[in-house]
Amino acid sequence: MATGTLRSVVNRHNVPPIVFLLIYVDLLNCQQYAIPFKAPSDCSAEEFFDISSLSCVRCVLNKESSSSGLSCICKTGYQTLTTDKASITCQQCPTDRPVLIKDGFGCIRCPGTVNDEGKCQCPPGNILVERDINGNLLNEASCEMCNGNSPGLSSPKLCFRCERCQAFFMNTSCVCNPPNVLAGGLCFPPGSLSTNVNPIVNYAQLVSLVQSAWFFKNLYSSSAACLVFSNLTACQALGNMCAMNMHSFSGVSTDACGLFNNIFRSRAAMSSTQDISYWRVNLPWLYYGDEPGLASRVLQTDPVPIGFSFRGRNKNTDIKLLAAVYNVRGGFLRWEQVGGGNLQLCPETSTKQAAAFRFGTAYQESCDLSVAELLGTHPEPLFYDVFMDLGGSENRKLLPLPTLVYNQQYNGRFINQESMKNWYLSRRMFVVDTLSGREKSLSSLPKVIRVASSIKIRFQLVPRTQEGQIFPPLMTVVYTDVAIRDINTQTVTTTFAVEYEMDQNEARIKTDTALGVMGGVAVIYSLLKTVSWKRRIASPLIDVKTMLTFLLFYAGDLANVFFSVTVGTGLYWLIFYKAQQFVSVLLPLPAQEEQFVTYIGCAFALKAVQFLHKLITQVSIDVFFIDWERPRSKTSRTVQAAGEPKRDPSPVSIWRTYFVANEWNEIQTIRKISPTFQIMAVLFFLEVLGFSNLALRDPWSTLQRSSQAYTPSYSLMLRYGLAATLWLCIGLLQVIFFTVFHEHFVEDKIRQFVDLCSISNMSVLLLSHRCFGYYIHGRSVHGHADTNMEEMNNNLNRESESLCGQRGLLPNTEIQTFQVSLTNRLRSHYDRIREQIDRSHGPSRMIDACSANQFELRARGYQTMNYFLGSIIDHAHPDMDYIVKDKLMFERVIGMEFLEPSEKSIFYNDESHSFSDVLFYGNEATLLIFDTLFFCVVDLGSQSFVLAAVLTCVQQMIFRLIRNTLGRKNLVSKTLVDERFLI
Amino acid sequence: MATGTLRSVVNRHNVPPIVFLLIYVDLLNCQQYAIPFKAPSDCSAEEFFDISSLSCVRCVLNKESSSSGLSCICKTGYQTLTTDKASITCQQCPTDRPVLIKDGFGCIRCPGTVNDEGKCQCPPGNILVERDINGNLLNEASCEMCNGNSPGLSSPKLCFRCERCQAFFMNTSCVCNPPNVLAGGLCFPPGSLSTNVNPIVNYAQLVSLVQSAWFFKNLYSSSAACLVFSNLTACQALGNMCAMNMHSFSGVSTDACGLFNNIFRSRAAMSSTQDISYWRVNLPWLYYGDEPGLASRVLQTDPVPIGFSFRGRNKNTDIKLLAAVYNVRGGFLRWEQVGGGNLQLCPETSTKQAAAFRFGTAYQESCDLSVAELLGTHPEPLFYDVFMDLGGSENRKLLPLPTLVYNQQYNGRFINQESMKNWYLSRRMFVVDTLSGREKSLSSLPKVIRVASSIKIRFQLVPRTQEGQIFPPLMTVVYTDVAIRDINTQTVTTTFAVEYEMDQNEARIKTDTALGVMGGVAVIYSLLKTVSWKRRIASPLIDVKTMLTFLLFYAGDLANVFFSVTVGTGLYWLIFYKAQQFVSVLLPLPAQEEQFVTYIGCAFALKAVQFLHKLITQVSIDVFFIDWERPRSKTSRTVQAAGEPKRDPSPVSIWRTYFVANEWNEIQTIRKISPTFQIMAVLFFLEVLGFSNLALRDPWSTLQRSSQAYTPSYSLMLRYGLAATLWLCIGLLQVIFFTVFHEHFVEDKIRQFVDLCSISNMSVLLLSHRCFGYYIHGRSVHGHADTNMEEMNNNLNRESESLCGQRGLLPNTEIQTFQVSLTNRLRSHYDRIREQIDRSHGPSRMIDACSANQFELRARGYQTMNYFLGSIIDHAHPDMDYIVKDKLMFERVIGMEFLEPSEKSIFYNDESHSFSDVLFYGNEATLLIFDTLFFCVVDLGSQSFVLAAVLTCVQQMIFRLIRNTLGRKNLVSKTLVDERFLI
Repeated sequence: MATGTLRSVVNRHNVPPIVFLLIYVDLLNCQQYAIPFKAPSDCSAEEFFDISSLSCVRCVLNKESSSSGLSCICKTGYQTLTTDKASITCQQCPTDRPVLIKDGFGCIRCPGTVNDEGKCQCPPGNILVERDINGNLLNEASCEMCNGNSPGLSSPKLCFRCERCQAFFMNTSCVCNPPNVLAGGLCFPPGSLSTNVNPIVNYAQLVSLVQSAWFFKNLYSSSAACLVFSNLTACQALGNMCAMNMHSFSGVSTDACGLFNNIFRSRAAMSSTQDISYWRVNLPWLYYGDEPGLASRVLQTDPVPIGFSFRGRNKNTDIKLLAAVYNVRGGFLRWEQVGGGNLQLCPETSTKQAAAFRFGTAYQESCDLSVAELLGTHPEPLFYDVFMDLGGSENRKLLPLPTLVYNQQYNGRFINQESMKNWYLSRRMFVVDTLSGREKSLSSLPKVIRVASSIKIRFQLVPRTQEGQIFPPLMTVVYTDVAIRDINTQTVTTTFAVEYEMDQNEARIKTDTALGVMGGVAVIYSLLKTVSWKRRIASPLIDVKTMLTFLLFYAGDLANVFFSVTVGTGLYWLIFYKAQQFVSVLLPLPAQEEQFVTYIGCAFALKAVQFLHKLITQVSIDVFFIDWERPRSKTSRTVQAAGEPKRDPSPVSIWRTYFVANEWNEIQTIRKISPTFQIMAVLFFLEVLGFSNLALRDPWSTLQRSSQAYTPSYSLMLRYGLAATLWLCIGLLQVIFFTVFHEHFVEDKIRQFVDLCSISNMSVLLLSHRCFGYYIHGRSVHGHADTNMEEMNNNLNRESESLCGQRGLLPNTEIQTFQVSLTNRLRSHYDRIREQIDRSHGPSRMIDACSANQFELRARGYQTMNYFLGSIIDHAHPDMDYIVKDKLMFERVIGMEFLEPSEKSIFYNDESHSFSDVLFYGNEATLLIFDTLFFCVVDLGSQSFVLAAVLTCVQQMIFRLIRNTLGRKNLVSKTLVDERFLI
Repeated sequence: MATGTLRSVVNRHNVPPIVFLLIYVDLLNCQQYAIPFKAPSDCSAEEFFDISSLSCVRCVLNKESSSSGLSCICKTGYQTLTTDKASITCQQCPTDRPVLIKDGFGCIRCPGTVNDEGKCQCPPGNILVERDINGNLLNEASCEMCNGNSPGLSSPKLCFRCERCQAFFMNTSCVCNPPNVLAGGLCFPPGSLSTNVNPIVNYAQLVSLVQSAWFFKNLYSSSAACLVFSNLTACQALGNMCAMNMHSFSGVSTDACGLFNNIFRSRAAMSSTQDISYWRVNLPWLYYGDEPGLASRVLQTDPVPIGFSFRGRNKNTDIKLLAAVYNVRGGFLRWEQVGGGNLQLCPETSTKQAAAFRFGTAYQESCDLSVAELLGTHPEPLFYDVFMDLGGSENRKLLPLPTLVYNQQYNGRFINQESMKNWYLSRRMFVVDTLSGREKSLSSLPKVIRVASSIKIRFQLVPRTQEGQIFPPLMTVVYTDVAIRDINTQTVTTTFAVEYEMDQNEARIKTDTALGVMGGVAVIYSLLKTVSWKRRIASPLIDVKTMLTFLLFYAGDLANVFFSVTVGTGLYWLIFYKAQQFVSVLLPLPAQEEQFVTYIGCAFALKAVQFLHKLITQVSIDVFFIDWERPRSKTSRTVQAAGEPKRDPSPVSIWRTYFVANEWNEIQTIRKISPTFQIMAVLFFLEVLGFSNLALRDPWSTLQRSSQAYTPSYSLMLRYGLAATLWLCIGLLQVIFFTVFHEHFVEDKIRQFVDLCSISNMSVLLLSHRCFGYYIHGRSVHGHADTNMEEMNNNLNRESESLCGQRGLLPNTEIQTFQVSLTNRLRSHYDRIREQIDRSHGPSRMIDACSANQFELRARGYQTMNYFLGSIIDHAHPDMDYIVKDKLMFERVIGMEFLEPSEKSIFYNDESHSFSDVLFYGNEATLLIFDTLFFCVVDLGSQSFVLAAVLTCVQQMIFRLIRNTLGRKNLVSKTLVDERFLI
């Protein structure tokens, strides 16, 4: 960025190359474009305020500043001599006529006193007469009394009103004779500027050209006055006309910007203003250079020498923007603080409008404005040169804000809508222009008005700054042309926005790296799981099903990777953005969040796949209840009924099986958390306590916002980070509460089930894979459980007083739950018996009557299975024996068994009740993450936490219903327990 | 209200009494105060616009209206002759000097042409000379050329500027000589008005008096000009000063309002303006009369002759308010539509501001305004005379809005803060007055500014109108005095509000009547319930407990009364307010809602009492499971163990009892609805679908509101009506879905339990009262249930094929569930056995070892009870026999048995499973209403549906937990089933 200026510096001073280098270094250290702040009131009496350079310039040659401070006039006692140029000459009054006449263009003696302004003063009721009847200046003025004799007049002398002609007229006759050119009340020498100027304003959006009355009246005279007389106001007026043309260059050089540029080039030899090469003396600064790539040098090279900080001792969040305001005629009006409605057209309370200038608050305010109202409030456009106030009490510095006019044309191309390297930055903007579109006269209704429909100030953070440094902010202006048809119904939409941006590439690379690395680990982990799965189903072949299973496992692991990366990212932004002191990170813009949202979508989709896979697996496991109870005696119960003695043993009551099956059915969908409480708690935190305010795009971390305060938009990233974190935290707290407190002190459904097995003398064999499963050993220590209340109670009492054996499978152990690795042989045997039980599925039931017989067969199969499994547990089959051992730590961690059960089946001690893996209970992590993602995805789509909560709740209900229904069906088909008992 | 005017009418015209009556009738039919709308542009060329009466008045005597239309001037060709009065005289120009001179006070001949305005015209560059050097009028004007020889001047002739003196000066010398009084540039004749006027403005709120520069300068001159010259502008200016003094009368008559009143009284003889007796000719209308009670006559007698309608063909919701705007000097500026920021100081988009003038939208907008900003935007106050536009294309009528100035004093009393009958209505208001508080000069900073901090327009509906008629709206203004200390930090809070009100007495009386009537019915119903309860507990005495129970029943019934009345009221408002076409009802104001909220509070408190009562009753019922299973055979199972043969029968397995008890425990808290779904659905409707917008205080019934639109406040009544209705509707839909669809096609837990009893060969006896309860007959039709799976399945199959008997208690019936009325004898017997079971509660367990023995005793008691109840059912005790009968229809309805079970117990057939009355299931109505009220009460307190939903959910969880825990404890103590089996 320094090059352009540097070149001019070098050219101007003819310095040797070594000094060049030094200057270059110097330039890099200081803020190149910053200018000192001067207001008219800062200039001393001998200085006037140069509205072009915005600085104080000394008045020379007997001149002093006028009362407005914007020009030089002759000192008291000096008469003004007219010249044909812009400057005036002052000459001291002769001693015999020491007092200036009223208009300052002559000297006179006074009849009486001299007033404060150094002019003659007459007594009240008298009138000062300075010239005779022919207009010749008198040597001495006289005071004449108003004492008329005409009724109702205070003076007999009448009023002739003749005016001075313009000082710029060529000669004293007040006539501008050809070949001089009369324009705008001024008389220009011939040949100063071609009169062939183009007063047409091009309203490109409407494809209409308007012969503008304002341009017609003022374009030539302003250009000529600027070029010939270097009139400051005229130059500003010309600049304003160029700004009204949206800074556009057409091919011809006779339009406003072309004329400006001609004058600009003609001043190339003169020094620059304020050491800025794009700012020529006497001219307004309208353009940065048109070198390619200059925009990025201006915008992304030198940081602004102030740092923003959100809190702490050096808290600095105020963005102070100042604007030099000019009227359309080129007059400098004032310095004005930006804010409070000058650029923000939408009516809003000042509190809300002021929020636009708090650093870090993403501000956007849109509204529809009535055209009639705009015409009323903006009869003439005002022009703003916007600067950023860099502070400093004495040497207050201002940084000019580069402006990007979106509609600016350069030889017909909208270059500012192209990529940054083609941008052509400019200065000076207006908000509403209802003037240039007036065609016939300046008082007629405009044909077209032009409104800055979008003003956006973009702040960009310096990469890796720790002190909240920013690059020069860019102001982007989009003008809209509105053709006037019916002013009372037409409206214009305007937007004022402040954006904060930082380079997100680094963050994106980090995210992608994390994804890559963790994705790789996930591949390994999924492979491991697949291997374990292959071993558990005892299938050595790698077939399509293996591939599919691998993909399913990988989906789950990849979902976890995506989930942890997105939650980590969201949490990172939440913490680092909201809690930082010196600004070092800024939120990604909505457009930069797209990738993040894609990741969340991936996580959700993959998690859903994993969840469905688990659900399907769970509702198809193999379960069998082994009843250890043996009949007490032979009985001939049916003798009376059938007359034929049966030799069946007295039947063992099935009610214990029913009880256990019923309980097993009931614990299918219990979870380690209460889903309803989870949703309610999250809603409570987000919506009632106001945690959702943390996701607003501003740096404040307060939960309650005043209704008077400005509410920025939400950041998707923060919303996700917040919701996911809150959901996980409350979930974890619940899990901790339930596992640590509730299950120890209130009730633990899983332990109760294991207890129940023991009390009811039932074992449970769960086979989740072909050769892998879980075994709950429930053989009663009392031998019998099928007894009356008294004995049951005795048994329970005896056990609580440790009067009987321990419940474990091995003698003198307590361990009742096992993971089992079965041998292939055992499983084959099991399958054969299972086939008999499942027979109903084979030949479809032909007649109802048959089903009873069929059931008898199946029940017999059931008995066989009961007997077979009991004998296995009792080591009664030497060829299908088993051993009990502990699992290795490493085996536990990776969830895989190293030993293959080739000879004997292996029962692994499992104190942690890992059979709950076939229930919802053991898959809390998957469910919690799935719920979190579901909640967040709905919220991201609808921006409504309430809707997300409602849908999540419905989702949970539906899946619970599905799981319960299918689980029950599975249980019925596997254990032959009638559905009516599973209630 | 007509009296005051009537009197004046009568006085003025001296009409006989019969005409008086006719006029009176006529007056009642027409809108008394309405005036026709006239703008200056409506007046013809011969009329001028009288800014005092706001009407067109004809210019007489050769006059025509001036270009502004606000005064009469002489016609073209007529010269103006000065007079010493306010009016002017016109005289035709003589024929030899036919053209008026420029100032109109003389006639002349023209040298050349005459221009459009009828004045002489000179060629360009020439100057018209009408008088000679001494000021005498020339006979013929001359045109003089500006062709000076002095450099830079366009004419040699110089400018003497002498002005006409005021037309009101006494003589032609332009000097006001004593004893005339010179004031405000005018010369008043002596004795016209005492110069002793009081230019002090009393800022009563700050206890400070300010000698106002404005009053000092203008009060005397305005009053005098108004009194002496009847100057219209001066009269308005005087009125403005009175308004700036907040219309206050002090004791002295030398302040602005005192002076105004003096002039007002002095005009008593003259006719009134616009037939309004409070409005004297040439004066502004500042006050209504001060007769006591006039305010209510003005505000509550005659309806405004337009009707408002919210929808349909005649939709009319626009409130059009017009204001005649005067500047502080008394000049009439314009007619202005109220809205768009003239009275609404807060910056808001025009859409939102316009919402204030939609009929029925409760509007309130408050904000803090910076004093510095107010000083900038309101250098001078504007004064508004506000009218309501009654429409009518040709004869457009305006209704003056009475204004109540809250701070107005009347001899030191703030009468407008007292009751309505003391009110002193006025007209004319201002918004910000920064002028009267300037003490030294008009350009100094004011010491105090006065701001209309609250402007409220109140519309009152005509009682029982069907056409949306209203009374004249009242505008209440509260002014706040702000002492200026630091204008940059000081702020003023201002409010603009529009309120709608109707007389709520009728509605309140109706509500109270309904409450009274239904409360009376509730007493009877509660008495009936108490009698029924007394009979069921078989206690004839009326003791304290009876009274208490009556009160508890009454609490429940009264809660229902309050609930139905409040829901009915809420729903009434919701439907009638939101759906009405012609406006016939308006919402109660927040202050009028207090009683309603009290009723809701009562309903909630009483319902909570009823709910707790039911809860306590439910967790203390008596329950016993009768096992019909008989031992199959004698066995000597324990022979091997003890060596001593036992003669106990083979024990009947207790597991069926466990199963039934477990299921009974599980159905304790099931409900006819899903509470979670209920909450989620309500939240979904209210917060996601936007039903909550229906509770806004506006007449629209759209669910989605634009964020740009104005959002009024919520009405508590609508919020309650909406939430309660929605909750009840969704609840009812759920009940219907569950009872009609779910229980028939999916599962019915209650029927399942009854089935289970039957299958498991168990009966359940539930005693909710001493001698009343429920009996579920569960004797298996197969004789035995304690068998193996095969036989169970056979049994089930046989039953489904109707191969065995029916399950009913009586042969060949299906009815298994009964309500039972026990005889006292039976209950005594029952209690004796129960005592044995409950013994543990008597002598506290001393040692643990003892407890086993104790349990044996209790188990024996249990067996006895089992046997006893079984034999009772089997009619084995002739002295405690029972009969089975149907309940009468009427008995069912009032829930009371007519027959007293003196000899035999009575079993009433009960197909509707009314035993669920001792579960949550049978009390869905109570629970639903309790939940509804809980939700609504939390919402009314917090105005947050989300918080209400969260707390309702937590409440349900807690009560479910309590009910489950206590219910289980009760079950354990009553049935001896170990707590470990109730999982």
